[in-house]
Amino acid sequence: MLKDFSPERIKEYSHSRLNVLCDELRREIYETVTVCGGHLASNLGAVESTVALFYTFDFPNDKIVFDVGHQCYAYKLLSGRAERFSTLRKAGGISGFPKRTESVYDCYDTGHAGTSVSAAIGLAKARDLNGEKHEVIAYIGDGSFNNGLVYEALNSLKILNTKILVILNDNGMSISPTVGGMHEILSGIDENRSDNIRLLEQFGLTYIGVKNGNDLEEMLDSLKEAQEQLKNGSVLLHIVTKKGKGYEFSEEHPTDTHGVPPVGSPKEKEYSEVLGESLCSLAERNGKIAIVSAAMKEALGLERFFNLYPERAFDVGICEENAAVLCASMAAGGLKPYYAIYSTFLQRAFDEIIHDVCAQDMPVTFCIDRAGISGADGETHQGVFDLSYLSLIPNLTIAVPKDTDELRKMIAFSETYTHPIAIRYPRSGKVLFSGEDKEIEAGKWEYLKKSNGKVTVIAAGERCLIIAMKVLQNLEKQGKSFDLINARFVKPLDIELLRSLESERVITLEDNVYLGGLGAMIGNALQRLDKPCKIKSFAYRDEFIPQGGVAALQKAYGVDCEELEKYLLEILS
Amino acid sequence: MLKDFSPERIKEYSHSRLNVLCDELRREIYETVTVCGGHLASNLGAVESTVALFYTFDFPNDKIVFDVGHQCYAYKLLSGRAERFSTLRKAGGISGFPKRTESVYDCYDTGHAGTSVSAAIGLAKARDLNGEKHEVIAYIGDGSFNNGLVYEALNSLKILNTKILVILNDNGMSISPTVGGMHEILSGIDENRSDNIRLLEQFGLTYIGVKNGNDLEEMLDSLKEAQEQLKNGSVLLHIVTKKGKGYEFSEEHPTDTHGVPPVGSPKEKEYSEVLGESLCSLAERNGKIAIVSAAMKEALGLERFFNLYPERAFDVGICEENAAVLCASMAAGGLKPYYAIYSTFLQRAFDEIIHDVCAQDMPVTFCIDRAGISGADGETHQGVFDLSYLSLIPNLTIAVPKDTDELRKMIAFSETYTHPIAIRYPRSGKVLFSGEDKEIEAGKWEYLKKSNGKVTVIAAGERCLIIAMKVLQNLEKQGKSFDLINARFVKPLDIELLRSLESERVITLEDNVYLGGLGAMIGNALQRLDKPCKIKSFAYRDEFIPQGGVAALQKAYGVDCEELEKYLLEILS
Repeated sequence: MLKDFSPERIKEYSHSRLNVLCDELRREIYETVTVCGGHLASNLGAVESTVALFYTFDFPNDKIVFDVGHQCYAYKLLSGRAERFSTLRKAGGISGFPKRTESVYDCYDTGHAGTSVSAAIGLAKARDLNGEKHEVIAYIGDGSFNNGLVYEALNSLKILNTKILVILNDNGMSISPTVGGMHEILSGIDENRSDNIRLLEQFGLTYIGVKNGNDLEEMLDSLKEAQEQLKNGSVLLHIVTKKGKGYEFSEEHPTDTHGVPPVGSPKEKEYSEVLGESLCSLAERNGKIAIVSAAMKEALGLERFFNLYPERAFDVGICEENAAVLCASMAAGGLKPYYAIYSTFLQRAFDEIIHDVCAQDMPVTFCIDRAGISGADGETHQGVFDLSYLSLIPNLTIAVPKDTDELRKMIAFSETYTHPIAIRYPRSGKVLFSGEDKEIEAGKWEYLKKSNGKVTVIAAGERCLIIAMKVLQNLEKQGKSFDLINARFVKPLDIELLRSLESERVITLEDNVYLGGLGAMIGNALQRLDKPCKIKSFAYRDEFIPQGGVAALQKAYGVDCEELEKYLLEILS
Repeated sequence: MLKDFSPERIKEYSHSRLNVLCDELRREIYETVTVCGGHLASNLGAVESTVALFYTFDFPNDKIVFDVGHQCYAYKLLSGRAERFSTLRKAGGISGFPKRTESVYDCYDTGHAGTSVSAAIGLAKARDLNGEKHEVIAYIGDGSFNNGLVYEALNSLKILNTKILVILNDNGMSISPTVGGMHEILSGIDENRSDNIRLLEQFGLTYIGVKNGNDLEEMLDSLKEAQEQLKNGSVLLHIVTKKGKGYEFSEEHPTDTHGVPPVGSPKEKEYSEVLGESLCSLAERNGKIAIVSAAMKEALGLERFFNLYPERAFDVGICEENAAVLCASMAAGGLKPYYAIYSTFLQRAFDEIIHDVCAQDMPVTFCIDRAGISGADGETHQGVFDLSYLSLIPNLTIAVPKDTDELRKMIAFSETYTHPIAIRYPRSGKVLFSGEDKEIEAGKWEYLKKSNGKVTVIAAGERCLIIAMKVLQNLEKQGKSFDLINARFVKPLDIELLRSLESERVITLEDNVYLGGLGAMIGNALQRLDKPCKIKSFAYRDEFIPQGGVAALQKAYGVDCEELEKYLLEILS
């Protein structure tokens, strides 16, 4: 029946039929996410409000921007994408986030937190200047609402002199429970503290509170009221919902069920586990070790650290910039801070990495998870830019462990390192090279295989080294071989090793875009060293990489065994 | 007498002697800034509060972080730097910003807006964990207070469970007058609106208001009170001051006297003038043109546009991220937005450029002023990273005009360009190549000189082309020559031209760091094209570039006529 649903007809539905629709949506979301993976709890909590929105507003004429996008599944199901919903997060399938290219119902793409209010204001201003009449809605969770960008947007609402509806879906959680002063202010509003409401009014918003955003009747009434108020000016509709609503385990475990892996996927998150263990063991004997996280402590393997050393562990919510400056200043105060974060989210702190951490040469360690292709989340979440945007920053060392065991060694190495260092690794990992026990030395690479030196493959990180090792095994069966180097530091490059290289061919592999990455830098270094050897780099071309499986995307973007082997066979023949 | 001042003795001063000290400071700041250049108005407004701080607190044991740093001159004069103050902003001299390397009184470097509250919290937390006892103060202007990072910091104050004093120096101005909702909230506090005060209390701050922050007695009393309150928790001391206080012209013209050039410096700001004129003429016949600025409209040449088209011109205050998302969403709504900003400040919007503008391929035009070495402001203000951090982003075109006339053509070109484009240029410029009338075509370079093709110099931007032209003139006198190309697009590179190149040597020049910049990308392109030619790149080495004159710094960092000529003479002999 959901597949036959047409958004135009919903306005004729009775309330009881709308409630049935909510049940169907909830079941569809649950069934799809448990198969395909995706964001379960937040989407379950948004069902009633989404149905009420469709009933009240007129999409796609009216526009809605979902912040981050973890609450847009019901919206997708109601806007003509039910039939294809089983392709959720798969290659070529429905995106887990709003996507303009997917439907006219999606007016603005999201993925990172805090953009929705700015985007709604910009869309509303364009509407005004174009002489159009539709409404513009920002739908945002309370976790995102903590982000500084949202504050900047609210601060500009009067300047742009336009009208929007902000729906603040308050489930008390980002991925971790929501924290900080603004959360208390919003909680204060629940208790009808008029001063907090007046605060929002000074930003130019009329406040409407909804005690149970999972109650369809209440949502319908309050959206009607919001629609009326919008004639006079901007409105903040604050709805309290339950993350995971209607799915008992999810209601009770909203953090565990925030993101759900597809069925049958092995539980592989060894890098984060190793990070957590390594930092705990450092902290045990070094009282200066502190960690900062931006609403991500569980996914990053830091729960145990937070439990063991709560006085030195700080989750500041989705505030990546603040986290970076806190680290720089803690280092200035003599602590040894570690900032654990996903690669793509660290982009938010780019200026602070330059201005606060590196210009002051502060010994901050960035532990960058989900680096390289991250897969099913698509364009906005691929961690494929970090080697490039970090390597242009003076004073910063960049390390890439070859396996989980080397991450352990790098964390140990970082303890006494007196400069900023970024360590980047993908989600899942293994111990690939057990038994190895070489010391980590800044800027020094290691040979994993020495052959005749004619062809040298330089690879960074587990994924690329696995590719190189497999190809090496295949070639050795054919009596061919090459030298293999673990480029465990991408910055500085091991110039001494490069200078001594006598290869005719150098081949690089990395889980990053080509531009500004490892291969490009090695290419430049060889030029500057006046080396006559030829270089071939396997890295991602200059595009935003869509959703899909990691291996499939690596193949599609030419960083895989087949391509490497083909090339090597050509030059070794 | 200021030169004999010792911070230890100030506590013995009578109030009248403190007032004399204020006068001396004001005179010294005025006299130095009008000779050396620097930030006049904001520093004049901060004199009394700084003297009162020295009287009340115990620096350098107590720590203070000046946000941005445009209010730290009096502090510098009182902390042992009076004697060297005449070297302000000169090469090797006193920095216009706090600098840890300059004095133990400076505990944390600043330059970009909004970092001070985070930094104070981090320093305070380090103090707590180290078992130390000093106070930590953030001194911040109301312009910076609008930045989202400050909000993120305030939001984390309770999470980090520490104590700081925030001094909000409210002069109603950033560089332009301060705008937005928070400013109204603060103004509301002046009027004793208790709800606004309670808001700050929910962030964990006790509020103390000072009606005249230029009144020494009032400052002394309120700092005493703040010091007492700090025993119980964090304090926000809100002081209202007059920007430019004590210097009549500056009081009346705070925007014009925010930054003051040194005496005798010619008024050269042609790029910003051309930008303003070009955008006005576009806007006259195209109703979709809109501009967004982050508290910088005067310095960017946009005043006239704001006056002529106020309904399409938005100054959102020091909120670089919000400005970027507003542009992306206005473009999504069918407008043609221009975002004018300084190169170094655009770093703040790095994630939004990727995530909102480029991933959605929105036709936003970035007009990037103060690109390349910016000079006297030093490390935090050099615009030398933009070619690198922008070129790694898919879908983004990067243009570099060869003179002000080419900026005009590029703005005209951008009007119908349907993708994101960044146009970067330095502060001052000229019409270098009048009479030229070639059409701008995306990714196409132009020959400015065709010789025998053996040596090709590829340069981007006016500064580098001037260097190349001068060297060319010198060499021609000696019967030597080379081909000269204007790389008016840094991305995409003109691959077709590079492919057809028959030179033995390629030389690149850019006003940017080498890593990831024009020379590195051309080097990589030549490798990928399998060109046998040798490349030599003149670009800045991998360091933070300190303050100094533009020409002197270009020389020190090896991008100047002398180096280029020396190299060319070598290879042409």
